[in-house]
Amino acid sequence: MRPNVYKFGELIEDVTTHPATRRSVEGHAQIFDAAQKEEYRDLLTTTSSITGERISRYLSIIGSAEDMIHNVRMKRLMFNLTGTCTGGRCVGFNAINSMWATTYDMDEELGTDYHPRLRTWLTEAQREDITLAGALTDPKGDRSKRPSEQKDPDMSLRMVEKEASGDIVVRGAKVMIAGVAAANEVFVLPGAGYREGESDYTISFVVPRDIEGLTVVEARHPSDGRDLEQGFDNPVDYGGITQGYLLFQDVHIPKERIFMAGEWKHSTKAVLNFIAPYRSAIGGCVAGQGDVIVGAAALMARANGLSEKVFRERLTQMVVNNETTFGMGIAASVMGKLHPSGVWIPDAKLANVNKVHVATLPYETKRLAQDIAGGIAETGCLPSAEDIRSPKYGDLLQKYLKANCSGETRARIARLIEWLTIGEGVPGCMHGGGSPDGAKLMINALGEIETNIRLARKVANIKEEIPAPGAK
Amino acid sequence: MRPNVYKFGELIEDVTTHPATRRSVEGHAQIFDAAQKEEYRDLLTTTSSITGERISRYLSIIGSAEDMIHNVRMKRLMFNLTGTCTGGRCVGFNAINSMWATTYDMDEELGTDYHPRLRTWLTEAQREDITLAGALTDPKGDRSKRPSEQKDPDMSLRMVEKEASGDIVVRGAKVMIAGVAAANEVFVLPGAGYREGESDYTISFVVPRDIEGLTVVEARHPSDGRDLEQGFDNPVDYGGITQGYLLFQDVHIPKERIFMAGEWKHSTKAVLNFIAPYRSAIGGCVAGQGDVIVGAAALMARANGLSEKVFRERLTQMVVNNETTFGMGIAASVMGKLHPSGVWIPDAKLANVNKVHVATLPYETKRLAQDIAGGIAETGCLPSAEDIRSPKYGDLLQKYLKANCSGETRARIARLIEWLTIGEGVPGCMHGGGSPDGAKLMINALGEIETNIRLARKVANIKEEIPAPGAK
Amino acid sequence: MRPNVYKFGELIEDVTTHPATRRSVEGHAQIFDAAQKEEYRDLLTTTSSITGERISRYLSIIGSAEDMIHNVRMKRLMFNLTGTCTGGRCVGFNAINSMWATTYDMDEELGTDYHPRLRTWLTEAQREDITLAGALTDPKGDRSKRPSEQKDPDMSLRMVEKEASGDIVVRGAKVMIAGVAAANEVFVLPGAGYREGESDYTISFVVPRDIEGLTVVEARHPSDGRDLEQGFDNPVDYGGITQGYLLFQDVHIPKERIFMAGEWKHSTKAVLNFIAPYRSAIGGCVAGQGDVIVGAAALMARANGLSEKVFRERLTQMVVNNETTFGMGIAASVMGKLHPSGVWIPDAKLANVNKVHVATLPYETKRLAQDIAGGIAETGCLPSAEDIRSPKYGDLLQKYLKANCSGETRARIARLIEWLTIGEGVPGCMHGGGSPDGAKLMINALGEIETNIRLARKVANIKEEIPAPGAK
Amino acid sequence: MRPNVYKFGELIEDVTTHPATRRSVEGHAQIFDAAQKEEYRDLLTTTSSITGERISRYLSIIGSAEDMIHNVRMKRLMFNLTGTCTGGRCVGFNAINSMWATTYDMDEELGTDYHPRLRTWLTEAQREDITLAGALTDPKGDRSKRPSEQKDPDMSLRMVEKEASGDIVVRGAKVMIAGVAAANEVFVLPGAGYREGESDYTISFVVPRDIEGLTVVEARHPSDGRDLEQGFDNPVDYGGITQGYLLFQDVHIPKERIFMAGEWKHSTKAVLNFIAPYRSAIGGCVAGQGDVIVGAAALMARANGLSEKVFRERLTQMVVNNETTFGMGIAASVMGKLHPSGVWIPDAKLANVNKVHVATLPYETKRLAQDIAGGIAETGCLPSAEDIRSPKYGDLLQKYLKANCSGETRARIARLIEWLTIGEGVPGCMHGGGSPDGAKLMINALGEIETNIRLARKVANIKEEIPAPGAK
Repeated sequence: MRPNVYKFGELIEDVTTHPATRRSVEGHAQIFDAAQKEEYRDLLTTTSSITGERISRYLSIIGSAEDMIHNVRMKRLMFNLTGTCTGGRCVGFNAINSMWATTYDMDEELGTDYHPRLRTWLTEAQREDITLAGALTDPKGDRSKRPSEQKDPDMSLRMVEKEASGDIVVRGAKVMIAGVAAANEVFVLPGAGYREGESDYTISFVVPRDIEGLTVVEARHPSDGRDLEQGFDNPVDYGGITQGYLLFQDVHIPKERIFMAGEWKHSTKAVLNFIAPYRSAIGGCVAGQGDVIVGAAALMARANGLSEKVFRERLTQMVVNNETTFGMGIAASVMGKLHPSGVWIPDAKLANVNKVHVATLPYETKRLAQDIAGGIAETGCLPSAEDIRSPKYGDLLQKYLKANCSGETRARIARLIEWLTIGEGVPGCMHGGGSPDGAKLMINALGEIETNIRLARKVANIKEEIPAPGAK
Repeated sequence: MRPNVYKFGELIEDVTTHPATRRSVEGHAQIFDAAQKEEYRDLLTTTSSITGERISRYLSIIGSAEDMIHNVRMKRLMFNLTGTCTGGRCVGFNAINSMWATTYDMDEELGTDYHPRLRTWLTEAQREDITLAGALTDPKGDRSKRPSEQKDPDMSLRMVEKEASGDIVVRGAKVMIAGVAAANEVFVLPGAGYREGESDYTISFVVPRDIEGLTVVEARHPSDGRDLEQGFDNPVDYGGITQGYLLFQDVHIPKERIFMAGEWKHSTKAVLNFIAPYRSAIGGCVAGQGDVIVGAAALMARANGLSEKVFRERLTQMVVNNETTFGMGIAASVMGKLHPSGVWIPDAKLANVNKVHVATLPYETKRLAQDIAGGIAETGCLPSAEDIRSPKYGDLLQKYLKANCSGETRARIARLIEWLTIGEGVPGCMHGGGSPDGAKLMINALGEIETNIRLARKVANIKEEIPAPGAK
Repeated sequence: MRPNVYKFGELIEDVTTHPATRRSVEGHAQIFDAAQKEEYRDLLTTTSSITGERISRYLSIIGSAEDMIHNVRMKRLMFNLTGTCTGGRCVGFNAINSMWATTYDMDEELGTDYHPRLRTWLTEAQREDITLAGALTDPKGDRSKRPSEQKDPDMSLRMVEKEASGDIVVRGAKVMIAGVAAANEVFVLPGAGYREGESDYTISFVVPRDIEGLTVVEARHPSDGRDLEQGFDNPVDYGGITQGYLLFQDVHIPKERIFMAGEWKHSTKAVLNFIAPYRSAIGGCVAGQGDVIVGAAALMARANGLSEKVFRERLTQMVVNNETTFGMGIAASVMGKLHPSGVWIPDAKLANVNKVHVATLPYETKRLAQDIAGGIAETGCLPSAEDIRSPKYGDLLQKYLKANCSGETRARIARLIEWLTIGEGVPGCMHGGGSPDGAKLMINALGEIETNIRLARKVANIKEEIPAPGAK
Repeated sequence: MRPNVYKFGELIEDVTTHPATRRSVEGHAQIFDAAQKEEYRDLLTTTSSITGERISRYLSIIGSAEDMIHNVRMKRLMFNLTGTCTGGRCVGFNAINSMWATTYDMDEELGTDYHPRLRTWLTEAQREDITLAGALTDPKGDRSKRPSEQKDPDMSLRMVEKEASGDIVVRGAKVMIAGVAAANEVFVLPGAGYREGESDYTISFVVPRDIEGLTVVEARHPSDGRDLEQGFDNPVDYGGITQGYLLFQDVHIPKERIFMAGEWKHSTKAVLNFIAPYRSAIGGCVAGQGDVIVGAAALMARANGLSEKVFRERLTQMVVNNETTFGMGIAASVMGKLHPSGVWIPDAKLANVNKVHVATLPYETKRLAQDIAGGIAETGCLPSAEDIRSPKYGDLLQKYLKANCSGETRARIARLIEWLTIGEGVPGCMHGGGSPDGAKLMINALGEIETNIRLARKVANIKEEIPAPGAK
């Protein structure tokens, strides 16, 4: 592929070897490795609803509650195996499914041919088993104004040209896009529900990562300077996060890769179809990292010479947190409904409740891990690997770091907890897939206060009508 | 039925009219009423796996994840309709299912004939559509000692005679048994996992509520004095809790109603088979009452002339709490397994995690309701219905209680919130179906710390073996 | 005194013997008893700043941080001794101090003579050592409208006549007024900050409890039916809450007992002067009851035969909660300022932060107590005292209630926990002295966001000016 | 001074200019700068109780509640000014005061002359206005064993020689010692309460930071790689943390700088005398950083074009958290006692309760900041300063980062939030000054369960004695 990914002001010639992206690529590669293993095959692969072939689950249509449960469990597994996010596949997976339903509806209502286009592209994608990132978030500019009201019209990605052929040219950016460095292609979604007059912003398409006119600049993340170092201060070799800023400078998109181009009335639905499975499955992510955090905390306790018993109450609370986001993801999956297009859409209320948990419980889990692990792990308060191996005083450091295991092993475990709780392994689970505020808005909208008021009135046999103050 | 229920030192001649039990009976009657309605029929009735007839779901075998989900939803519905617990049916329902699996296993391993006995009795029970309470909790005495070590051997219910015919005679008590006053029969379970030497305690059977030798003394509950009053200070007419102390004075149980009699090795399994569905479904209970609490709080805000907007964040949090216990119940249901006897057993870890939530989240929901509803509702701080209707000063009280509705309506709503949060409507969700400590013990036992430690080691490539301190 | 207190539709002839009020009177009497004891004398009495005589602290001017700390500690002590609220003294105490400062300011600014009037009355009150309730809360009516906008102008207490002599006539009500039944006099404060056109609502005065035209109707509280019973189901004999609705039917107030009459510009200050000490000292109340809850929970564990060790983490959390509200009360006390009138006014921000804790932490403390104490205590799930002493089956109940102590003792402890957590002992700490919403409003107003923004800008050396969106 | 500080395997020749230590030195320098300013002088300086001269408060004896309150406020101020910890002064300050009391007691009981030695040294230190770090934490090794039971006897710092002159030679390490790089001297304390047979570990003394035989290796902290970069990715220039590992290779300590040498019976008291003020004052630290976090979150909201109103509830909660740790620090200060040596010792129970809050509340504050600030700030998810200034695509990044301010300013604010919540600014408040587990142990020890049980018994008039299970 054409090198178009940058970090620290420099072009990354080869994302598979450059230290800034290598770990993320390796993390995504774990998916392929695991899919080969007997124990994970059923989770990571499935049968294509299009071709009947065995395909990666990440490129499949979620056709049932069971498929959706597998999605939640798959994400838990991938965090178990890599310690962090392999977002270069799951967002794309969600995007396919969101647009599978949305294009179906558009074609039904508008007589367009988006759905067959998507089917054609997906058939090929499944055959080639590509890694597909997904891009949702626009820069947005001043949040007090709508996309069409911004001073600079480019603050949300938009069509600047619509050719007679049906091809379009797009300008703008998508930001904080996970795993692009590890991806072959990027599936672009409308970043929000748009209104009349915002049809140029209502676009969905898929592009090769190295398409002409696209530049990717990688975001930093905590402690990412250690990626460039030797030693074990970034303690994880086969897992890592990248989040790219995708700069589209008048990129030309051919018609057959376009799945939405101006149909603003359908944009909200496209976003909702994305949100429901995403906010369900993210419960698996958080649980999967939580599993590793529980293990790391217990391991650190052992390394310190302390029994898990001392920390039983806290370890149990951490497990409760993990199982809560996992369980809520499962529940949202099960209580969903089948869309006419064949996509299973999880329950919106439960999915959004899960988003609220995902934005709070992992913080408690991490705090408890730091509590259990002690001062050395809280902020990774120990000398660098280079110091620990210093010929001058490394032996002294190793002597004094030693506890119920060697000094270096104890250092590595402390670094792992730092990585998981205040370092490179921390994913953006608070705002990833939308902010908790948005989730609360939806819960509130779905909360059926009026129904509950009726229940209360009936239980206590209250007859008098009480108007809602301020209502008209 | 023979009158054998007492409260306040007196025999209750007719439980359906006596004010101490009438509301509970009426609450249970709502189940029959609702089952007639088109909208609830599928939830409240099902097809008997034995006879193929339409039966009450409360007397059915839970044969699938879907059945178990219906159980969770049914409990939510019944709290929606009565505002509180109709425990005189759901514990019995759980007991049937627990012993359906347990008797199957016993017969398989021991060659006994308990399972066909249970089937025979259940067939008849389904046909007669009885209301069946369930009895689990023993008095236990000094908790630092096992049942067989107590000074008084009767502190857990036990066989004092096993006749040649297979009949047995039992002595002891079961305490805090929900809904006995509304029940036709009571299904008795072993109260704990028993060990060698405790076979006399390992008993399960079913008795008519008015069997010879059984005396029921009803427990008090908060504000239950109001049951005996006129007026609306107990604001709910068709719903209420009773919890009986069942005193067994050498009660004779015929063989065909005995489902366990000494097989202590199977007692733990019997308890676990009870716990898993109970701790899943209780998520529905708590959500169902939570729905009414949300409605009551919003209604009180209106009555005070305040918009829900002011309380949006809090109402949303209450909905999050409701959906969390509901969702975790659903998740535990779905992730279960089919027992060879045909009973679907929910996932133990998720069910116990839910018990932890059930012991905490409703407290927050109630606190938020009191927060929203204001000082008048916090402890029901307003004069009695009798005062409000006093010919002397009742008009003044009504004048000053008035806000965005009449004074009396506002008083009723305040009483409803008192009833729900610090009065008669509060069920024992913390310890019902076992204490949160027990749930945490199980979560911990199921928590797979070793698996998590392996994950952590693998992620950070930690090779050195670290022995668990204190392990042998 | 003239009998003018009603409950359950009946006149209470003698508040000291009638079961509905007797316990509250006894609770307040404990203050006098304790003041005699060497160990408590310094806390409960002090030297009058007016006369130099030894007086009850409840009638003193709070003249220093140390006085204010003694106030917080005194409230903790009284909850320790009575298990609940003796609000018939502390609100009056607060009212005196609030108006001591407010009258001083009014006289300075307006040339009125309120302050000497108050001094004259207080000198006498100290000499007679009266019990003085305080009355703040108005009925308010529709909360979406201001007092002057209500359909019924009486929804806040108001002057209906101002005589030439300076005497006034008042009409309206004060509601949920603590301890009136135990009081000799009632100190009335303006219920809110008033605006122009609301001067008739801006009144402060003191009246004998039995003044002509005043009727008191007592509010119910949870389980108050038990007051009328024998036995130990209300387990506390020397402590109890009453909260009266005070109906003023054109009550004539002589000039020398009036401390504010129309000066609306000073009403907000009067309220703030009340709030700061009240919301500081309430931390002592909540801690004092929390001490008893900790003791009751630990005692119940013993009664059940369980070691405190099992519950150590939870008992420690309960202590943390107690010390937090106590400590914040102390901190607010210390960080206060001396008003020119000689009254020490605690720090408003810390006092209001404490109100937020007072509205949340006790709920957790009570939940933990129910958790520790088990199912029998959660909702007081055991038969009545009458049943336990029944000649027919009382022996059986006592047998089965027995654990590491007699059945009756265990029953009494369970009732105590019910009383403390879901019964008569629960004070209205959430909304007492104003709602947490009001406290948050004040914290926010005092929160110095702009100062904090300046700090942040300086730390990160951010130069660009960023206007607040929506600001003009 | 002799260069003896290392990081990343290399000797730091000049701590004032080397990027790894420069910011920490600058942070400490802010103390001197601020002390010159009129507005801060009273807080940062005081009168020496020894000489009567104006001295830095950091070298003073805390002689009263007021002094202790100033300590809490001073720490809040320093976090306000530097955004983070200036631990190179406050630990030393605490150490002086702990040993002031401890040496006094030792001299009284044992006839030693430690106290005058300390006074002599302190007089000089005040005169020279030195920066004094404090060193408490030993490596400890296997936590399941006491210091004297470790395989390697050096796991806690110890005397290996006691010379006839009274001089000693010490070997071992002190780890995670704050601000050593910025300090002139280091005050060493016994790291724990020691027992018989552990007198060699019971040592206290003061050394120049560059004493012969002492090597300091700096610990890493999150994102510390950015210290070595240009640009604003470490957004704070005048503040920063260092935490050194101090390796003592047979360091010779002259008698006049030794304040404890073997008196193990006094070691626990020395630790307690350290803990009480430390755990009080740390409430000021956490509040001070919290102030900056509130400001940064509100500023980010503005930068995004959002009104603070949207976030009012959360900003208020953040203020509540800040004022709680601050207030508890104040309360512990006030409720203390004067030690005969003239040192004011804060209340141990309140100080330890504060430690529990310090280990939890800041985590919530940081979570809320990330919630308010959005995805860009959660993990600092934006390109590096170098990218933002790239000639190739920097203009595009700036264009798309722009909102209600320039792109670069928005980037700087996002980096500040990253720095405060998941980066270099995060201090080790969980375990600094001892772990929350230790604090809970002390609260429990001080919790007076027996007293509380007596209160509960008295309130409910419970006569029967109930023995504590398991008690002898």
